[in-house]
Amino acid sequence: MPSYTAPTRDLQFILHDVLNASQSDIPGYAEMDADFTSAVLEEAGKISSEVLAPLNTVGDTEGCVMENGVVRTPTGFKAAFDQVREGGWTALDLPEEFGGQNMPYLLGTAVGEMFSGSNQAFTMYQGLTHGAASAILVHGTDEQKAKYLPNMAACEWTGTMNLTEPHCGTDLGLMRTKAEPQRDGSYRISGQKIFISAGEHDMADNIIHLVLAKIPGGPEGIKGVSLFIVPKFMVNDDGSLGERNGVSCGKIEEKMGIHGNSTCVMNYDEATGYLLGEEHKGMRAMFTMMNEARIGVGMQGLAQAEAAYQNAVEYAKDRLQGRDVTGDKNPDGPADPLIVHPDIRRSLMDQKSFVEGGRAFLLWGSQMIDQSHRGGDEAAEGLVSLLTPVIKGFLTDEGYDMTVLAQQVYGGHGYIEEWGMSQFTRDARIAMIYEGANGVQALDLVGRKLAQDGGKHVMAFFDMIKTFLKENEGNEALKADFLDPLKEASKHLQAAGMYFMQNGMKNPNHALAGSYDFMHLFGHVCLGLMWARMAKAAHAALDDGTSDAQFYETKLATGRYYMKRRLPATALHLARIESGADPVMVLDADQF
Amino acid sequence: MPSYTAPTRDLQFILHDVLNASQSDIPGYAEMDADFTSAVLEEAGKISSEVLAPLNTVGDTEGCVMENGVVRTPTGFKAAFDQVREGGWTALDLPEEFGGQNMPYLLGTAVGEMFSGSNQAFTMYQGLTHGAASAILVHGTDEQKAKYLPNMAACEWTGTMNLTEPHCGTDLGLMRTKAEPQRDGSYRISGQKIFISAGEHDMADNIIHLVLAKIPGGPEGIKGVSLFIVPKFMVNDDGSLGERNGVSCGKIEEKMGIHGNSTCVMNYDEATGYLLGEEHKGMRAMFTMMNEARIGVGMQGLAQAEAAYQNAVEYAKDRLQGRDVTGDKNPDGPADPLIVHPDIRRSLMDQKSFVEGGRAFLLWGSQMIDQSHRGGDEAAEGLVSLLTPVIKGFLTDEGYDMTVLAQQVYGGHGYIEEWGMSQFTRDARIAMIYEGANGVQALDLVGRKLAQDGGKHVMAFFDMIKTFLKENEGNEALKADFLDPLKEASKHLQAAGMYFMQNGMKNPNHALAGSYDFMHLFGHVCLGLMWARMAKAAHAALDDGTSDAQFYETKLATGRYYMKRRLPATALHLARIESGADPVMVLDADQF
Repeated sequence: MPSYTAPTRDLQFILHDVLNASQSDIPGYAEMDADFTSAVLEEAGKISSEVLAPLNTVGDTEGCVMENGVVRTPTGFKAAFDQVREGGWTALDLPEEFGGQNMPYLLGTAVGEMFSGSNQAFTMYQGLTHGAASAILVHGTDEQKAKYLPNMAACEWTGTMNLTEPHCGTDLGLMRTKAEPQRDGSYRISGQKIFISAGEHDMADNIIHLVLAKIPGGPEGIKGVSLFIVPKFMVNDDGSLGERNGVSCGKIEEKMGIHGNSTCVMNYDEATGYLLGEEHKGMRAMFTMMNEARIGVGMQGLAQAEAAYQNAVEYAKDRLQGRDVTGDKNPDGPADPLIVHPDIRRSLMDQKSFVEGGRAFLLWGSQMIDQSHRGGDEAAEGLVSLLTPVIKGFLTDEGYDMTVLAQQVYGGHGYIEEWGMSQFTRDARIAMIYEGANGVQALDLVGRKLAQDGGKHVMAFFDMIKTFLKENEGNEALKADFLDPLKEASKHLQAAGMYFMQNGMKNPNHALAGSYDFMHLFGHVCLGLMWARMAKAAHAALDDGTSDAQFYETKLATGRYYMKRRLPATALHLARIESGADPVMVLDADQF
Repeated sequence: MPSYTAPTRDLQFILHDVLNASQSDIPGYAEMDADFTSAVLEEAGKISSEVLAPLNTVGDTEGCVMENGVVRTPTGFKAAFDQVREGGWTALDLPEEFGGQNMPYLLGTAVGEMFSGSNQAFTMYQGLTHGAASAILVHGTDEQKAKYLPNMAACEWTGTMNLTEPHCGTDLGLMRTKAEPQRDGSYRISGQKIFISAGEHDMADNIIHLVLAKIPGGPEGIKGVSLFIVPKFMVNDDGSLGERNGVSCGKIEEKMGIHGNSTCVMNYDEATGYLLGEEHKGMRAMFTMMNEARIGVGMQGLAQAEAAYQNAVEYAKDRLQGRDVTGDKNPDGPADPLIVHPDIRRSLMDQKSFVEGGRAFLLWGSQMIDQSHRGGDEAAEGLVSLLTPVIKGFLTDEGYDMTVLAQQVYGGHGYIEEWGMSQFTRDARIAMIYEGANGVQALDLVGRKLAQDGGKHVMAFFDMIKTFLKENEGNEALKADFLDPLKEASKHLQAAGMYFMQNGMKNPNHALAGSYDFMHLFGHVCLGLMWARMAKAAHAALDDGTSDAQFYETKLATGRYYMKRRLPATALHLARIESGADPVMVLDADQF
């Protein structure tokens, strides 16, 4: 069975050596000194390794089962959820007045990576509750906040998001679920929602569903969609639970992975709902949470890659097979460990350099969320909004590929469920799909974010790279290994943006046909930037005579690998982008 | 539920327009005219679509079940196996004297693609029998051939290959299974083998296991391994079945996919075995079949990609979601079909251009197997031996990636088992692992095949490309779209080979660290060559005033896509290769 070791050392490095968290003037960051974050991360790491990770295989094997409308979660999930609740881990970054701990989103992300990495299916119950609570926090009335948030922050009640219907996922304007206004100000909700994660289960006293629906007579399409709070059990004014509402789970889906999370078909049959935010502004209410939710999914991709990588390393060190061609490394044993073989190294280095670079990217993005929400920094808000589809799309695509590489290290054993490597792959697969399939992320990036506010944010990104390169000009330790490749890669990104500008006007398909490559090209440049910043921090620590030289030396070697062997992918993506729309669009539908 | 349509039109195009099969002087090819192969392919296609494809989901859902040592295959498998037997599909390319049809391996591969594409788990029972029968055909005594082959050719008895043990997969020198010689010339086989596909099941009267084991006192390591025939039921001299042999299935593995095929732990407890071939030459006996077996696995990767692609196309045409940015394509409907969106096109074109190019590559390789086996052509034998790891590794890696792309087209539905797209991905995953994990293929390519016979075969490959380019010099229809990109890509391949030659001597890790990239670089050049040859054939047909112009126009457009958008990957692979061993090997094992 796979194991999980919390990557606390690496998280601390990024938080403090790279992001200088406690030196930042973002409200709440001053408390985030190394001792404090270390204590939080160590504690969260312990729960991850000791409580959540051992349940990961259990969740996969048992799955969720529905009997007579009741959904049973896998053995041990309930007790573990209690432990997470008791430890106060359910609302790290929610306001204190509702029972949260008011910590930065940044720290929530760091803890979230460990929880997700050790058990993604389990952690989703909590993650969805957090998302729903955030929506109520931003768009709810004072009464709604008082009524729902304390129990949701504590995860005594969990939450869900109901968007998809059988005939519409991305194109929510096609939605059919109806909300009929009632005299008392409430609404009657009727319709069917699918793919509702944590839609029904046995780990909480109540479930607060957030449901998108159309009020009859409103605008057509997406402009006529509103958001509603639909509790599973009605909540009385004194906070006690009343009768069962008209919402029920029709079915649990059989999925490729995340079996421990119940994915439900939810039927709304004249259920009582309460408008959240304004009429017909449901999509706006959803969008305010979307950056966070998407960054959270990017985190899942990274987290599964980290977990799979850890186990691949252990296997590569343990499994004796073949001999090092340059000379036996284990002469007294029957064979050398797999890790002596260059192609196994190639695979492990691909994984390691992605995971560490991706983690820095993820935490940098999370810091910008804090800068924006806590610090009111509009530039940070614009930049993280631009980068969000990259964090989501790139980290989940690459994260998935890394779980496949990790599985491959196990040879035949990687295909056998007992060894657990298949689960990482199967669980990671969903992150490329939900919260906006990655093709939709690419469309969002190229079709919306790039030109947002007159292209200001992408310009700010390029300026930031230019400034970084300028600031470090003459730093010979960084130049050839980090700065030059970063410069080259960012030129490719600029050329791609230029191609879109020059050709997208004539025909938007010239931009959209290259959108997926652009998302990956952008992702590589971001990881290149992260590696350059990490290398700078590592050199600084070594120059300061750190007592942990091996950590920093390893960091530099891993970064050099990324710059040499992964970053050159930018040229390929540019070539594909510059081939334009014609090769992609030339066939008629019936020629496929 | 997914459907399967046999790609007979495309197979016919490759067999006749591209490979000119019936014009070839390979023994047996003269009969392969277009009418004949069409009849065979149509018939095989019918069985694939109507009998095997409908059982694919059944096999995945039910899996194989073991009760009291008896393994039950999924509902319907037994009846379908009877139909395949009755249709004479089990031994297309085996000699007539043993009940086969003596057709070329080429045609067997074309049929095999359809069988595998419609139901990989099912087709493996037959595929493994074919492999075992081929081994007996080449290495068996006349008596052994007479005793086993007729029933194996008819699949009345099925076969298995027993190589792997719990502690050794690739490194078979570590093997522990023992074969004690008996006075009557037989051997007593004892030991445990794992990952034995079709090791035990209820679809045949007998199972003929081919087992690698060590005769005590023989040479150490891989040089002391011999191959044995171990029947499940002893076979009497009159051909009737005798008592049960000392071999039994200990367990069926739970796998990520191919659930319809039983993957067994096989226990040999003083089982009676008969030497196949010479003592201590077991690996040589295995190797003679390895090219074919590996090409067969490459075929599986391609076949799953084709099946997944077909369903992705159907879904993209049916599912209405969003609008074409250049103007509504379905103005009377609520939305346009997915296929209008450029990023969906990008995905479908990636799939289509891979599948068609890969199919040509596969069949070209199969033709060389015939040239070698039937025609005694040593140059063809050398070339196909060089290309075999490329066919296996590249087609299965890319094939898997294509199933992931196809699954992604379905959005959320791609993750739900009911829709069947997850199964293509899960089934395709095994092909990257078994019959030598793809890293081992890369090692075989760079460590052995490249330098084989003084590098003669890779030189022949480059000469062939040079000749093709020269022959078509001045063909303006081909030049910019096909010949120039092929020339560029093949330069990258030569540069990579040169890098290995110049640096591999100093340190073999300079070659091995780039082996995986080299395998993919080689694969792209091969597909580039195939596309150039197919484009030439398409132009010829169009110039001849073909009545099927749309087919050939589509072919050209698909080829242009590959050359423009996929082939440029060669530059990235070269860059990675030329970065050498250092970035890959610099860390100590404990730095991971």
